[in-house]
Amino acid sequence: MFDPIEKLKEFIRHPSVSADPSFNAGMKSALEFTTGLLDSIGFKVEVIKTDLHPIVLATRGDNPAWPHVIIYGHYDVQPADPLNLWKSPAFEPEVRGNRLYGRGAADNKGPLMTHISAVARLLERRPDLPLRITFMIEGEEEMGSPSFPKFLEVYSERLKEADFVFLSDTGLPSADQVVITCGLRGLVLCDVVVTGAKSDLHSGLHGGVLRNPIQAVAELCASLHTPDGRVAIDGFYDDVMPVEEWEREQIRKLGADTEEYRNFLGIRAFHTPPGFTPFEATRVLPTLEFNGIGGGYQGEGTKTVIPSKAFVKISCRLVANQKPAKIRELLYGAIHARMPKDVTYEIIDQHEGTPYVVVPPDRANTPKDQSPVLASAFRAADTAIAEVFGKPPLYLREGGSVPIIADIKRVTGLDSVMMGLFLPEDNLHAPNESFNLDVMEKGMRASEKIIESLAAK
Amino acid sequence: MFDPIEKLKEFIRHPSVSADPSFNAGMKSALEFTTGLLDSIGFKVEVIKTDLHPIVLATRGDNPAWPHVIIYGHYDVQPADPLNLWKSPAFEPEVRGNRLYGRGAADNKGPLMTHISAVARLLERRPDLPLRITFMIEGEEEMGSPSFPKFLEVYSERLKEADFVFLSDTGLPSADQVVITCGLRGLVLCDVVVTGAKSDLHSGLHGGVLRNPIQAVAELCASLHTPDGRVAIDGFYDDVMPVEEWEREQIRKLGADTEEYRNFLGIRAFHTPPGFTPFEATRVLPTLEFNGIGGGYQGEGTKTVIPSKAFVKISCRLVANQKPAKIRELLYGAIHARMPKDVTYEIIDQHEGTPYVVVPPDRANTPKDQSPVLASAFRAADTAIAEVFGKPPLYLREGGSVPIIADIKRVTGLDSVMMGLFLPEDNLHAPNESFNLDVMEKGMRASEKIIESLAAK
Repeated sequence: MFDPIEKLKEFIRHPSVSADPSFNAGMKSALEFTTGLLDSIGFKVEVIKTDLHPIVLATRGDNPAWPHVIIYGHYDVQPADPLNLWKSPAFEPEVRGNRLYGRGAADNKGPLMTHISAVARLLERRPDLPLRITFMIEGEEEMGSPSFPKFLEVYSERLKEADFVFLSDTGLPSADQVVITCGLRGLVLCDVVVTGAKSDLHSGLHGGVLRNPIQAVAELCASLHTPDGRVAIDGFYDDVMPVEEWEREQIRKLGADTEEYRNFLGIRAFHTPPGFTPFEATRVLPTLEFNGIGGGYQGEGTKTVIPSKAFVKISCRLVANQKPAKIRELLYGAIHARMPKDVTYEIIDQHEGTPYVVVPPDRANTPKDQSPVLASAFRAADTAIAEVFGKPPLYLREGGSVPIIADIKRVTGLDSVMMGLFLPEDNLHAPNESFNLDVMEKGMRASEKIIESLAAK
Repeated sequence: MFDPIEKLKEFIRHPSVSADPSFNAGMKSALEFTTGLLDSIGFKVEVIKTDLHPIVLATRGDNPAWPHVIIYGHYDVQPADPLNLWKSPAFEPEVRGNRLYGRGAADNKGPLMTHISAVARLLERRPDLPLRITFMIEGEEEMGSPSFPKFLEVYSERLKEADFVFLSDTGLPSADQVVITCGLRGLVLCDVVVTGAKSDLHSGLHGGVLRNPIQAVAELCASLHTPDGRVAIDGFYDDVMPVEEWEREQIRKLGADTEEYRNFLGIRAFHTPPGFTPFEATRVLPTLEFNGIGGGYQGEGTKTVIPSKAFVKISCRLVANQKPAKIRELLYGAIHARMPKDVTYEIIDQHEGTPYVVVPPDRANTPKDQSPVLASAFRAADTAIAEVFGKPPLYLREGGSVPIIADIKRVTGLDSVMMGLFLPEDNLHAPNESFNLDVMEKGMRASEKIIESLAAK
């Protein structure tokens, strides 16, 4: 008999910190644990080498006529330091109350084990289930998945045979309210470095004859938003997918309190573009933010210098259907047009990511060519989650970015059904990470129902 | 017979680095050298204790009816590191060509020795000269003269008996063109620290709902200048002393080349308020500069954060007759009026300094109540410098700030005649500092003539 909690404890005991080479043995043993587990429940397992940590591809069911679901997860975890803040050691899992504590409990070993357990139970009950299942489990997620895009390219023909990707690596707002994440924002990032004089100048001897590069950067930054908080670049919003009333309705159902959110952030007032609540703005609107600015003297007291250089780090969050290349072009065009002519400057490209959206079936803006298997997965999720958790899931786009989801879509054409399973209090990436075992049990039951529903009739 | 160059070498051998306690012995021996030297040429010497390094007050001539000149200088020097960049050791003076190398050679031991030698020669020739002379020599100039204001307060009654202060602690543009500095800019400094959310935020999860403090700082900074380079604060220019045609004429005579200056700075174009050349702007106009800016992530690559805080360091250079307190009030008023209401902020006072101006006699804007001794000193300087250097001096205000000059004026009412003696190539505050011995010799002859001319008839 498959014991999910014991298996999860065993998984957590392998200290698989992908970013720290001193944990290579833990990475290796976590990989072996994963492959052994999948083998034990009847999967054909392949270990795919990458430049760093291997990717596991494990399949069952070989009839090409059957529906095919890919379940994504990752076996690597965040570093556990500062270790002294953990009540029980990070890699010695401990159950306290209805929670299992340990690094990776919620991100992502617990949610991944939820699906593996669901599949194990299901196949125990129906060994001949007419469904192809592929586990795709990587070991570099906490490093930004550097090997994953290349893997997708190489394996795209095989992956394209599937109908959609199912995963749990997002959150839910409370233990009885599951969220299915239907969109993620994209990114375009760059640095702008402005140079005035060729070296720092004495502000007494030379002050008053040249434009200070801090001023040039400030003028640029101040020009990029309208007073009401929109991005002041022509064409920036042209491709933005309109928000539908059903989406606003889902956000309202979330029941988040504006005043509570304002207090949580600790701000005097929101500064949200007109026509959108804060909860809508982060999900359905693009942004232009300044992530860092620097120049001149930053220490205590004073140094009366006119710095030679100043810089700003800019990032745009994009929403469906904005294209990173087009936004980059518009942004750079604005910088070129607005930068004062008496300074020199350089724009340094940083990375970018495509926004992602998947619209559930039966909505005003559902694509007409949506895969029937994907549609039935959404419908099954709606029913199963309502049955198990007592409430149907909410379908929400999120403000963050998970580049692999957009990469999977770009390379293989596959959409993802993201069923959130970790709670705000699970302490992801922090000491005393834990996973709610009630959520795990309900998640297993929901996952089992959803996966079973996909099988050929 | 008094040998100025040998005395200067001896002076330099005392390593009097005021800012570094490990040089306290050098400070002490430089002080003893100074008092011994002044004693040897007939001065009554007092050593005035301060919290740090003593001030020397040395006087000759006790007839209160005689004119009275104070000669200012300092016996402390800058640190000499990096030592490995010196061709000959910093505290082992060496003559190469017409230059004497060593830390302090130009700042300020050489120029101070120039005046001591002039006085020694003069008194050798005319032991009964009807003139009161006071040397006022401090040991904390390179630390910002922290003890000097208190000293001025305590000794103000005695110092007020003098007619003016004579000093050489400013520069001249070339060995044949002496500049008498007639004005120095003042200062008002502050930091502005803006806070948005109470901690750094993930720009995906929260981007789009609040004003980024970097944006608030940028908007403030961008609002503080007009497009043509003036300070955009009502009343900022109200008290600015108008520039007279004679001043523009003096600046033109300097013969500085705009294109050469542009290349020296390495800028694409000047950004000078309309109606002023760059050489005028730094001398006769006030400024508002950004000395430093910071906030958020400043490292390599990217970190998609909305910082909790951002700050800017602002300094205004003031010209005669602007008042620091009034400018601070106007600046803070502008910050209060323009800061967006959805962020919190703090203004941190930094130091300030009063601008200084002394107008030579016979100019359109010479004060009607100018001291006759000061006026005759200016006239004597004009004649003596023309005779010795071959050209009359230029009378220029400078863009920098020397707070003690304004402090002397404020506390004692005394003006200063600042005869520049160091050249741009003298490497002040840098390795291989040196003093041009031709300038020293000419400076001595000019100083002797000027001081002699002050004597009662």
